[in-house]
Amino acid sequence: MTEAPEYTMAQRLGAEALGTFWLVFGGCGTAIFAATAIPVDAQMAVGVGWLGVALAFGLTVLTGAYAFGPVSGGHFNPAVSVGLAVAKRFAWRDLPGYVAAQVVGATLAGAVLLIIARGIEGGFDPVETGFATNGYGDRSPMGYSLASVALIEVVLTAVFLFVILGTTAKRAAVGFAGLSIGLALTLIHLISIPVSNTSVNPARSLGVAWFAGGDAMMQVWVFILAPVVGAAIAGFSHDFLLGRDRDPVA
Amino acid sequence: MTEAPEYTMAQRLGAEALGTFWLVFGGCGTAIFAATAIPVDAQMAVGVGWLGVALAFGLTVLTGAYAFGPVSGGHFNPAVSVGLAVAKRFAWRDLPGYVAAQVVGATLAGAVLLIIARGIEGGFDPVETGFATNGYGDRSPMGYSLASVALIEVVLTAVFLFVILGTTAKRAAVGFAGLSIGLALTLIHLISIPVSNTSVNPARSLGVAWFAGGDAMMQVWVFILAPVVGAAIAGFSHDFLLGRDRDPVA
Amino acid sequence: MTEAPEYTMAQRLGAEALGTFWLVFGGCGTAIFAATAIPVDAQMAVGVGWLGVALAFGLTVLTGAYAFGPVSGGHFNPAVSVGLAVAKRFAWRDLPGYVAAQVVGATLAGAVLLIIARGIEGGFDPVETGFATNGYGDRSPMGYSLASVALIEVVLTAVFLFVILGTTAKRAAVGFAGLSIGLALTLIHLISIPVSNTSVNPARSLGVAWFAGGDAMMQVWVFILAPVVGAAIAGFSHDFLLGRDRDPVA
Amino acid sequence: MTEAPEYTMAQRLGAEALGTFWLVFGGCGTAIFAATAIPVDAQMAVGVGWLGVALAFGLTVLTGAYAFGPVSGGHFNPAVSVGLAVAKRFAWRDLPGYVAAQVVGATLAGAVLLIIARGIEGGFDPVETGFATNGYGDRSPMGYSLASVALIEVVLTAVFLFVILGTTAKRAAVGFAGLSIGLALTLIHLISIPVSNTSVNPARSLGVAWFAGGDAMMQVWVFILAPVVGAAIAGFSHDFLLGRDRDPVA
Repeated sequence: MTEAPEYTMAQRLGAEALGTFWLVFGGCGTAIFAATAIPVDAQMAVGVGWLGVALAFGLTVLTGAYAFGPVSGGHFNPAVSVGLAVAKRFAWRDLPGYVAAQVVGATLAGAVLLIIARGIEGGFDPVETGFATNGYGDRSPMGYSLASVALIEVVLTAVFLFVILGTTAKRAAVGFAGLSIGLALTLIHLISIPVSNTSVNPARSLGVAWFAGGDAMMQVWVFILAPVVGAAIAGFSHDFLLGRDRDPVA
Repeated sequence: MTEAPEYTMAQRLGAEALGTFWLVFGGCGTAIFAATAIPVDAQMAVGVGWLGVALAFGLTVLTGAYAFGPVSGGHFNPAVSVGLAVAKRFAWRDLPGYVAAQVVGATLAGAVLLIIARGIEGGFDPVETGFATNGYGDRSPMGYSLASVALIEVVLTAVFLFVILGTTAKRAAVGFAGLSIGLALTLIHLISIPVSNTSVNPARSLGVAWFAGGDAMMQVWVFILAPVVGAAIAGFSHDFLLGRDRDPVA
Repeated sequence: MTEAPEYTMAQRLGAEALGTFWLVFGGCGTAIFAATAIPVDAQMAVGVGWLGVALAFGLTVLTGAYAFGPVSGGHFNPAVSVGLAVAKRFAWRDLPGYVAAQVVGATLAGAVLLIIARGIEGGFDPVETGFATNGYGDRSPMGYSLASVALIEVVLTAVFLFVILGTTAKRAAVGFAGLSIGLALTLIHLISIPVSNTSVNPARSLGVAWFAGGDAMMQVWVFILAPVVGAAIAGFSHDFLLGRDRDPVA
Repeated sequence: MTEAPEYTMAQRLGAEALGTFWLVFGGCGTAIFAATAIPVDAQMAVGVGWLGVALAFGLTVLTGAYAFGPVSGGHFNPAVSVGLAVAKRFAWRDLPGYVAAQVVGATLAGAVLLIIARGIEGGFDPVETGFATNGYGDRSPMGYSLASVALIEVVLTAVFLFVILGTTAKRAAVGFAGLSIGLALTLIHLISIPVSNTSVNPARSLGVAWFAGGDAMMQVWVFILAPVVGAAIAGFSHDFLLGRDRDPVA
């Protein structure tokens, strides 16, 4: 999760795009293809449920962090990039490129998922099924209000950034950051899929919302704003609360 | 899981409060929001069940240990603090502050969970649902007696402390303590959610019991006493049974 | 998973007894208490199923290996001790003590599990429920024959020993043996619970069979013999097949 | 995942055969024995579902990578060997031997699985049940088209190779490659079991297809071609996209 200055900016943006593609393809793909799928002749429900979706999102980040993290820092999430910049761990001047690469990777994943999903016998409608988008009110999986959804997204993104900042600090056990950060994302999904379908990541939300119709797009602002607010809160307060033990990025 | 004297006591207590907030918010939050939630149009039950709850509790400690452990030692649990003090791995004079920070963090998590839970369509009653509290008799998930509940809480907390003391000893593999301790808590929940809803942590029990009515509060003493007894047994016997290979804290 | 000569034999046997207690208490305890438990008012089945049991068995060994492994080598299984002795990684003269400690720990776990289980409302009968024992024919969970049960136990124990011997060899990544060996046991259970209820460990089989009636005891010989045969096959062939890169124990 | 020239070619091929045996025995074995098995007297469905199968496949590679990887590089998959050769991380001259060993190990696993499966009360028919083979159209678990199946196999194998190449690069965290690669395979199965029953590995597909009748064999070409194409794409583009930081193999 640290920048490697020996890589070109093109390679760093490539790593961010690839990693965010993987996050959306793997996490939303599991939600779309596998969460509730039951073959006609199955003796029992074999779909992976929300537990499988939670595991999938976490494993995209775990594997992406170890594979692509040394190149780009492994953010895969605009809120993470913002939070790291606020905490002086990431250069503000690199933020626009990172966010653009993340949104491009996420959107490409949404497009490929849609192509594959449409190959199912009987057809597939992204608007009707929701296409793994985030939502509140009647678009929340269990009908949670806007206030509840916004609050849980702020809280979870803030703790997510505390985990990222803590496990990539110099004091932390070497090598275990990717494991911790990936499994933190699994945990975040275990808690909040029923509430908001879990974003904590504006790129993940946008990557599928483009394809899911106007109602999904009307609500996507919450999943841009709340994660960024949560990440900024953690970025501002981390050094005060837990101590600074890493040189700020210029 | 070792103290870092270069941090101020305020930072150490902040880390304990934040980590215990995370433990209750993540573990009890998964139990409250996701364990049995089934969207109205689901083709199969997608809730994460007790397996998801067990995983969530463990991942709060795994991620908290790597992120906040270097600051405070990563106890997040009054029974752990007592057991480490008995084993001479933690200073008795720091115990009151640690326990206070843990209970404050846990209670704050309970309060935020209640605010979010109340945003569900149709409303939410913490007394009627149990609000992820621990219990025995008719408040045990499967109706286990006080004796069974007390015994399993003592045994599981004792082994939990043996795992903590063993994996943070000098002989242990570097870096793997957080993984082992977090997954030990997952294992403990896999075994005992049906029996006691699993405490092994007085702060976790109190953090939700405040909000769950008089019956929950009447039983909470078991989940303060039994974990502390189990932890003390392990703390006393560890060096005799498994060898001392770490200097005691003054 | 290496012996630490600086520990006394009493401490090494204590670590083996404690670790095998943990294996049976955690693995069989999850099977008995949590696999199929459904609270009366549950909206969906919340029991952890065979997946939870498989995870539990693996996590007992993962956590025990990191916590107690440095003291005793972390066998927790007579078949493992035999396989390591055949492979010249463990001294034959220590085998009787290790096996005795393992069986004592496993049996103590079975006894404590029975005490707790009997505290459930409505009572508990270890003979009728099977008490997490292993079996073939009409005592196999899905009715597999003696030949299938014996074959899968031999194959799985052999590969288990290959994993143990490989991950504790000098060539292996430092620190990852406990993770690999524990998760190998989870995998072994994922494959074979339906066939034999999974032993690969004579102490685990005996620890619960004592309490489960004559039919269980009549079949337990298979779960002593087959794991030992599988372990010995791996112990004999490992150095030839995969290369010796560790000094044999005298 | 690096070659160890100090091992003989026979030992390297033995490690590949054993590791691929483990992959098919563990992954397909879980699918065949445990995914949907429900004992007659079960109170709830206890089978491990697709989540258990996904976990099993990943754990075969995780455990095999740590145990046998130091000997052979731990490919266990012809597509991985091809992708590594394209990326100049593996010698082309060793490819035929590796692929042969992988197919032999996979086929042996299929044969032993069939022997065990036939021991179930009431008998077992590999053709009727599908025997964990891959397929498209009416042989896809949820009825996905050939185009969808081919596309998802190409994409997933490509990202799998990016993860392998990234986590075994010199820049990567030491020791975490086996964990990342194994869990990447779990993730890949979470996404795609409903679509293609998940191959990304021609040896895994062939190992069970031999025994599952003509319809299975008629479709197996897709699961040879698509993974190899995906792996080659990643092998060609990795150094350009993410930077070369490892000396090519002669």
